[in-house]
Amino acid sequence: MISFATDYLVGCTPEILKRLEETNMEVQTAYGYDSYAAQAAEKIKKAADCPDAQIWFVSGGTECNQLVIGTHLKSYQGVVAAKTGHVAVHEAGAIEYTGHKVMELEGRDGKLVPEDLAEFLRVYLADGNITHMVQPGMVYISQPTELGTLYSKAELTAIYETCRKYGLPLYIDGARLGYALGSKDNDISLAELCRLCDIFYIGGTKCGALIGEALVFTHGNMPSAFFTLMKQRGVIVAKGRVLSLQFDVLFTDGLYEKLGRHAMDMAYLLVDGLKAKGYRMYLDSPTNQQFVVIENSKMEELRAKNVDFSFIERFDDAHTVIRFCTCWATQESDVEELLSLL
Amino acid sequence: MISFATDYLVGCTPEILKRLEETNMEVQTAYGYDSYAAQAAEKIKKAADCPDAQIWFVSGGTECNQLVIGTHLKSYQGVVAAKTGHVAVHEAGAIEYTGHKVMELEGRDGKLVPEDLAEFLRVYLADGNITHMVQPGMVYISQPTELGTLYSKAELTAIYETCRKYGLPLYIDGARLGYALGSKDNDISLAELCRLCDIFYIGGTKCGALIGEALVFTHGNMPSAFFTLMKQRGVIVAKGRVLSLQFDVLFTDGLYEKLGRHAMDMAYLLVDGLKAKGYRMYLDSPTNQQFVVIENSKMEELRAKNVDFSFIERFDDAHTVIRFCTCWATQESDVEELLSLL
Amino acid sequence: MISFATDYLVGCTPEILKRLEETNMEVQTAYGYDSYAAQAAEKIKKAADCPDAQIWFVSGGTECNQLVIGTHLKSYQGVVAAKTGHVAVHEAGAIEYTGHKVMELEGRDGKLVPEDLAEFLRVYLADGNITHMVQPGMVYISQPTELGTLYSKAELTAIYETCRKYGLPLYIDGARLGYALGSKDNDISLAELCRLCDIFYIGGTKCGALIGEALVFTHGNMPSAFFTLMKQRGVIVAKGRVLSLQFDVLFTDGLYEKLGRHAMDMAYLLVDGLKAKGYRMYLDSPTNQQFVVIENSKMEELRAKNVDFSFIERFDDAHTVIRFCTCWATQESDVEELLSLL
Amino acid sequence: MISFATDYLVGCTPEILKRLEETNMEVQTAYGYDSYAAQAAEKIKKAADCPDAQIWFVSGGTECNQLVIGTHLKSYQGVVAAKTGHVAVHEAGAIEYTGHKVMELEGRDGKLVPEDLAEFLRVYLADGNITHMVQPGMVYISQPTELGTLYSKAELTAIYETCRKYGLPLYIDGARLGYALGSKDNDISLAELCRLCDIFYIGGTKCGALIGEALVFTHGNMPSAFFTLMKQRGVIVAKGRVLSLQFDVLFTDGLYEKLGRHAMDMAYLLVDGLKAKGYRMYLDSPTNQQFVVIENSKMEELRAKNVDFSFIERFDDAHTVIRFCTCWATQESDVEELLSLL
Repeated sequence: MISFATDYLVGCTPEILKRLEETNMEVQTAYGYDSYAAQAAEKIKKAADCPDAQIWFVSGGTECNQLVIGTHLKSYQGVVAAKTGHVAVHEAGAIEYTGHKVMELEGRDGKLVPEDLAEFLRVYLADGNITHMVQPGMVYISQPTELGTLYSKAELTAIYETCRKYGLPLYIDGARLGYALGSKDNDISLAELCRLCDIFYIGGTKCGALIGEALVFTHGNMPSAFFTLMKQRGVIVAKGRVLSLQFDVLFTDGLYEKLGRHAMDMAYLLVDGLKAKGYRMYLDSPTNQQFVVIENSKMEELRAKNVDFSFIERFDDAHTVIRFCTCWATQESDVEELLSLL
Repeated sequence: MISFATDYLVGCTPEILKRLEETNMEVQTAYGYDSYAAQAAEKIKKAADCPDAQIWFVSGGTECNQLVIGTHLKSYQGVVAAKTGHVAVHEAGAIEYTGHKVMELEGRDGKLVPEDLAEFLRVYLADGNITHMVQPGMVYISQPTELGTLYSKAELTAIYETCRKYGLPLYIDGARLGYALGSKDNDISLAELCRLCDIFYIGGTKCGALIGEALVFTHGNMPSAFFTLMKQRGVIVAKGRVLSLQFDVLFTDGLYEKLGRHAMDMAYLLVDGLKAKGYRMYLDSPTNQQFVVIENSKMEELRAKNVDFSFIERFDDAHTVIRFCTCWATQESDVEELLSLL
Repeated sequence: MISFATDYLVGCTPEILKRLEETNMEVQTAYGYDSYAAQAAEKIKKAADCPDAQIWFVSGGTECNQLVIGTHLKSYQGVVAAKTGHVAVHEAGAIEYTGHKVMELEGRDGKLVPEDLAEFLRVYLADGNITHMVQPGMVYISQPTELGTLYSKAELTAIYETCRKYGLPLYIDGARLGYALGSKDNDISLAELCRLCDIFYIGGTKCGALIGEALVFTHGNMPSAFFTLMKQRGVIVAKGRVLSLQFDVLFTDGLYEKLGRHAMDMAYLLVDGLKAKGYRMYLDSPTNQQFVVIENSKMEELRAKNVDFSFIERFDDAHTVIRFCTCWATQESDVEELLSLL
Repeated sequence: MISFATDYLVGCTPEILKRLEETNMEVQTAYGYDSYAAQAAEKIKKAADCPDAQIWFVSGGTECNQLVIGTHLKSYQGVVAAKTGHVAVHEAGAIEYTGHKVMELEGRDGKLVPEDLAEFLRVYLADGNITHMVQPGMVYISQPTELGTLYSKAELTAIYETCRKYGLPLYIDGARLGYALGSKDNDISLAELCRLCDIFYIGGTKCGALIGEALVFTHGNMPSAFFTLMKQRGVIVAKGRVLSLQFDVLFTDGLYEKLGRHAMDMAYLLVDGLKAKGYRMYLDSPTNQQFVVIENSKMEELRAKNVDFSFIERFDDAHTVIRFCTCWATQESDVEELLSLL
């Protein structure tokens, strides 16, 4: 059984290794100017129906968030995010390291509430002391969120309208985008996502790649001198082909979405099994992260059986919230084995 | 009538100008090594009964906060503060500019709640993902707070105990410290303050000086190479005498506390008058900032009469919170004139 | 005798203290929006024949350099300066603290050589690896330089032409500008200086003020949201009147240039005396800093007589370069006394 | 024929791909805590005879330099490097981005001259204004250098002695370390290197890996909370196994040194051929980068023949310095083909 603790504990979809081998001895221009970068970018632009997109491949999500936010904001601007957003909690201050405040809103189930965002901006920008304050310069959301939830098209549209009203770029962290695209509850296609934000990244590391994320500027809004900005931040990888080739593979024949759908099929199997066994879900997660409220004694029992899950938080004196993740690599037999142990 | 909008709208206590004149043609070593710096430091150490204190004079409060927090924290640490703290709201991201997160707690009436701080740290530091998170490296409070409230000795003691338990230095922003020391409700002497924190600054600009704050490290904990750290941040003033001489004057014959007490006498006069006239106080402020909930129509009337106050925030559809400040320079006749206009 | 060690060891021109007293109890808007700021700006604009200028008053030179360079450069840009420039040597890395490289050119007598600058930019920008390199984003010079030398109008014109050719703003550090304007060797008026650069500051601290420098954007090129940028960097002084009033005084009735001329008269008296006594000048300084190559034994003799000068550098085994500075406050009797001791 | 332009234009040594495949479906702890990280670290410690070493695997050289320098220096410190050092020239200001000055010394053939370093530090630290200046906090060298040259054991020993005398850690950039170890002219073993510096990295990307460098702290001097410091800088890779596994392979059965030796054999073949054909070497490079002074017309001829080299710099009106690189992947037939085209 593979681990259900999270979705980046095994290697990559085998097609990637195959192509790495096939292309290994090719001479390719370094620093992101290889032919696979161009090719993968074309495939992503096509899949996203976004001919104006500008695309770079980077090594990881925190790095990508830091790069995008740090290079887009003016020095006195901050980024608005949900309190549970990855940039707010789990990047060890990577955004503040670039000099910017994460302006945290309460959120609901991991999502920014469109009305709350609109109201926050209206009130904040009307403050008489605004010139003494951090000024909002961008809005950050994750799709799916850190809690596995999804923005609906209506919600995303409302958020983007607020962003446009105030001239704030909307940036979407798609670390697990494949699992959004593979969810039955998702009503936002890749092309729609592209039209409803300014910048986003397509997660590779958590969705079938070895390493890498595809950063997409949706309408010619890549900062000028972006290569040098990346170089200065240590983001440029000499053999960029290692990153780009993976996205070339993932965006060939719809593999990226296929992997996401497969993981979701496994998640449905798991959640049905959990419910059948009387487990209580912490929230109705529409994606590959499934949060369960479990008795502490039961949790210890699972640990004793070597069932590999993530501890999320204490629920009450007697219960804990734990997380099971499926991924592109999860097999039906893995889920069955897990259920048999629960 | 002088303005009641805030406490830094007139010049300085006349004794300062007199001494500036008397000493004008003296040759004094530059960059903070003048004889007045040494002399003022001695006087402050005596007034605070803190022989080990290390003291520097800087130009302003935001600069001072930025300097202290930025030079004390390790790069991955943040500073814990109340949501209403100056560093959290009104410094345009000066702390984040140095690379650090302001970790905001809800607070009550502008103060960190000792129990909440203890609970926050207990839970936060127990998080299984702590190495992926900003780590608390300092606690920041203001005395008096931005809302004019005061920590009691019991509260400050509890907060400091929590800080020591977790090895976090406690830093007190004393921009308006004179008005705390002058308040009847205050039960913390300067010497006690000194023993109950690691670093604080004595506000000059808002308490009778032209420009300048006295930064005090209470027990030999000034960072090494602090001069160079200040120089690098643009904080060092060539003619440091301009700052130090003012504190030399303020700490001669108890002038600093006298000015604070006078301002508080004026505040009591004002608040008694306000209450007598039926005005509703927003909170029971024990210091020189008095917050009044006023009908919007009444507020407009005051404006029309050229009464100078600060807008704080909308209270409800029909009311607004406004602020009146007394200061070291407020005269009884000013208060009477103000009351007659209300 | 006052010290000849440097030009910021005594207080300020008495007219300033007088006005501080006269205006002390006036209510003035805080944070740089006082009426003296507006008034001083008008006077400077008139003196500089520069109606489009935008002016702010800040506390010190290093802070000002850091502010200007840090807010003008894009993150991947550096500032070109002479190796001896203040930003390159004596600001403890204040520029690097803002994230930017000081790109040092050799220079001659403390000045950037116009031809060298042009050649440096031509070659550097033609480098095939330019996108992997820091890119020049500004040129910094000092007038007078740190060695007391002056750019001629021809030199400044040539440098500014190169800057314009490459789209680089030219920034002039005028910490001692008064002594340039007061020098017989100077052929650049304040108005011409204004037309031959993009940004400069008029030194107050070293030229007769207590504290403060006037930062001038010559043609509407002040960064947007500049107040907030300053606030974020801790540069904003609550009682801005303390800074602005001094420039209001200095730019009334040509006082600033008068003080500079007086210091230069004293410098000429000194240098004539030195030469008459057979002292060897290190370079022909046209301003108030006079560098002398002195025998080490003689230097010790001066020290024993309490003559106060600056050590600059070892010249050879037997000689040292020392500096005498005159200033706005130097009296003829001071110079005579000094000469009598030499 | 593969390209001779540089040494990171093809993929990786096939053993790596093989192991990636074999281990692909293994569940491994994320974020650098995988079993291969531990295993590779052990192998490196053994190869370097350095049992106290602490090792992390990172994605690239610029990132690694930025991480090491930025986390080791105090904010007012700078790093001393040769003018030609990678950190000084080709990282787009990555070091300054972290707030630190690169203190550039002239150097000779790309190397810091031990006597010059000692003299620089002696004079600089004796400067009377040192508290107003950036203070040296680390020394950076590359082995081999950016010009392909090597420090001898005597030189490295002298440099390290100077570093220890002044308490400065010595950091060695080993981006191409494999080619140093493989050179006949090298007299410093990996174990000796380890004893003669405080921190170094073993280059993977340019020496046979797909992506990754091994950062080695030689004697327990890894900064505390280093994981969080890396996380904050975006350096942590979720699937750290991708980096560590490569070093596990490279340090199995001496593969790393074998690859270096092979590249050097190819370099010797090339340089002998070049000399035999009468080409003039720009300097006697003992490693895999070979610099040739070539007539411009000849250079154009080579271009026309699709010979792939690097332009380095203009030599004089008629000549250019170009570079040929061999690498772990270069075949004898590639060199022969190249020579036949020259």
